[in-house]
Amino acid sequence: MNAEILCIGTELLHGDIVNTNAQFISKKLAEIGIDVHFQSVVGDNPNRMTEAFNLAFSRADIVICTGGLGPTKDDITKDILAQYFKLEMVYDENSFQHVKEMYSRFRKDFPENNMRQTYFPKGAKILDNKYGSANACILREKADEGKYKICALLPGPPKEMEPLMEQQVIPYLKEFSNEVVYGEKIVVMNIGESGAEEMIMDLIDNQANPTIAPYASTGKVIFRITAKAESKEKCIELIKPVKEELFRRFGKNAYEIQSGKVEDKVAELLLKNSLTIATAESCTGGMVASRLISYPGISKAFKEGFIAYSNEAKINTLHVKKETLNKYGAVSEETAREMAVGAAKVAGTDIGVSTTGIAGPDGGSPEKPVGLVYICVYYKNEYNVQKIIATGARDTVRERATTSVLDLVRSMIEN
Amino acid sequence: MNAEILCIGTELLHGDIVNTNAQFISKKLAEIGIDVHFQSVVGDNPNRMTEAFNLAFSRADIVICTGGLGPTKDDITKDILAQYFKLEMVYDENSFQHVKEMYSRFRKDFPENNMRQTYFPKGAKILDNKYGSANACILREKADEGKYKICALLPGPPKEMEPLMEQQVIPYLKEFSNEVVYGEKIVVMNIGESGAEEMIMDLIDNQANPTIAPYASTGKVIFRITAKAESKEKCIELIKPVKEELFRRFGKNAYEIQSGKVEDKVAELLLKNSLTIATAESCTGGMVASRLISYPGISKAFKEGFIAYSNEAKINTLHVKKETLNKYGAVSEETAREMAVGAAKVAGTDIGVSTTGIAGPDGGSPEKPVGLVYICVYYKNEYNVQKIIATGARDTVRERATTSVLDLVRSMIEN
Repeated sequence: MNAEILCIGTELLHGDIVNTNAQFISKKLAEIGIDVHFQSVVGDNPNRMTEAFNLAFSRADIVICTGGLGPTKDDITKDILAQYFKLEMVYDENSFQHVKEMYSRFRKDFPENNMRQTYFPKGAKILDNKYGSANACILREKADEGKYKICALLPGPPKEMEPLMEQQVIPYLKEFSNEVVYGEKIVVMNIGESGAEEMIMDLIDNQANPTIAPYASTGKVIFRITAKAESKEKCIELIKPVKEELFRRFGKNAYEIQSGKVEDKVAELLLKNSLTIATAESCTGGMVASRLISYPGISKAFKEGFIAYSNEAKINTLHVKKETLNKYGAVSEETAREMAVGAAKVAGTDIGVSTTGIAGPDGGSPEKPVGLVYICVYYKNEYNVQKIIATGARDTVRERATTSVLDLVRSMIEN
Repeated sequence: MNAEILCIGTELLHGDIVNTNAQFISKKLAEIGIDVHFQSVVGDNPNRMTEAFNLAFSRADIVICTGGLGPTKDDITKDILAQYFKLEMVYDENSFQHVKEMYSRFRKDFPENNMRQTYFPKGAKILDNKYGSANACILREKADEGKYKICALLPGPPKEMEPLMEQQVIPYLKEFSNEVVYGEKIVVMNIGESGAEEMIMDLIDNQANPTIAPYASTGKVIFRITAKAESKEKCIELIKPVKEELFRRFGKNAYEIQSGKVEDKVAELLLKNSLTIATAESCTGGMVASRLISYPGISKAFKEGFIAYSNEAKINTLHVKKETLNKYGAVSEETAREMAVGAAKVAGTDIGVSTTGIAGPDGGSPEKPVGLVYICVYYKNEYNVQKIIATGARDTVRERATTSVLDLVRSMIEN
């Protein structure tokens, strides 16, 4: 069985929002062994939506569709799907109660256009939406050649769509799949994509099950090792020797983390080793701390962070020496070191990390160009400073510096 | 002329990465009046890529394609496009020098598979990639019915794709478009999507040029007002009365910001009014500061931030009273207030903002459930505390709290 993801919304075609729904749904389907061959986005236009449904059902067994379940005039996804399968729309009393209850939190009256959210294609299995007014639904209908097609219609907002997909659509689809697909990720730092692939080209050439696929991300290459088998245990067994071989070849530049996120690896290492950490950030401005704090349970390790954007903050809060700032400047190895040490000392933690740089677009000079960032990790009375020259826009420079300093923490704890 | 965006990469179909490229390209095309009717994603599979090119050229005049220009075996986009237009692949000496120069930064030898990056479909206009080894290209070819089709092939990594799109593809396409599309965004807080739409339903019903389109985002609704005309000035003129009417109806709940981002609005207001700000964050853990600091030139306003995750940090750094924490707890109105005041006092700023809450997934209780966040803004010796109960995953709760506290800053400065 293979699936297609169809996201509906003119705001996607205008580039007003980024399509995180396609990513989330793809990932969840991959976990239960359902291949996604296409993702499509179409606007709130009846003809093009019909065309998109036609195409999707012609090449996929399962279509997961997001958007267009809201109360407004351009929310027509259910109607278009009902027309496609020649089904009438029927009123659902439970959904009426649900919509009424949701709206009563905000206002007393019941806007007439909300009635749209109480009608569904006949025969649909209706899914309760705990986080919004738009209930979702699943249809399983006979299509051309007598084959069954499954279609799930989900609301567009990710915080409503994600729990519906995870808790209701996935369990439903699981019954149609008897294979498990399971993947693990190896992150490789400090080696370019083509260089890294070349080092394991013989493995990629001879791959079957598991497969090895590289993809480059900001400052790293991720190898996804994916196995198909009758159980997750069997998949893990198939992956193990491949993983060991990758570690043998990439050495300390490689590490394993399921999410592919270095902050999760750092959080795991901190908690496992009962280490505490504090951050002192200038150009990254809270990004290092924010990424670490996205890890649930991090409060045992993360104690305090400082965003020392001005020189006064560096001096008063982190005790960076005035002479250091005057002699070397705020963006320097010396300032980075004093910031990292200062963070650890002030917060009383085992580890202190710092970033200071020029994120741009202005503020660069021939000696200190935009993209120059010094990062430092202080740990066990030792420190490690690195100089980075990142290319790209302001936030790309900040992200690159964030990823690099987190990886430096990882390698210092691991080695 | 209309366009289709075709993103190539199995990592997108697996959900390993989110497709920010489609958003960026859509936005840039919209700005020069080129409509995007479809976005598609397909994996690194020759047959499905050919099928996707066929389909895209059958329904669009312009196809902007990303991914598959790298040096690895599965990078076959140029070959597939050459086959589609029946063109041979020709060697480009400039690209060879470019690839050689890029790789010499990392390593001495020249991996054989990099030669892939020096061949292009015959007749292509080759675009220099300043940020990576993969040069891009544009083809303009006669297709069925003698119509010309334009196709741009761009690399997948956003930091390479974005400057190529903006600096080379857009100027090229502009010559084929004699209309300007220009949009402005009005953000509406504190009113739900259907409620907000209802308040301006008569305007939406009678819209022509400009159009008004709503879309809901975390904690807000954005109305995009879009006009088409022969110049940007003319568009602005068309938009003005519509915008004024929206402000008249939504009052203080509405504000205008081109990016649709509240942090940009706050940054603008701070700089315009020469105000300084400091942040004290618990559950948002640097997200408030990080979003503000993404604004270029913010250093005049943003002085210092504190991520007071532990109670000790709240007491030692922000001078929150121990009794307050004991009596009301870290997640309370009282603590939020003392944090905001503390941040402003310690950093010596005009404004202090704070967040303290339970982002989850653990740590909730019947009285203080997961999703409960107190936010506070201290400004001109006054403070404003609000209690939020956000639903969703850990990072959704954090984002919601971040957006809310930034909006609170906005409304306190504006009013």
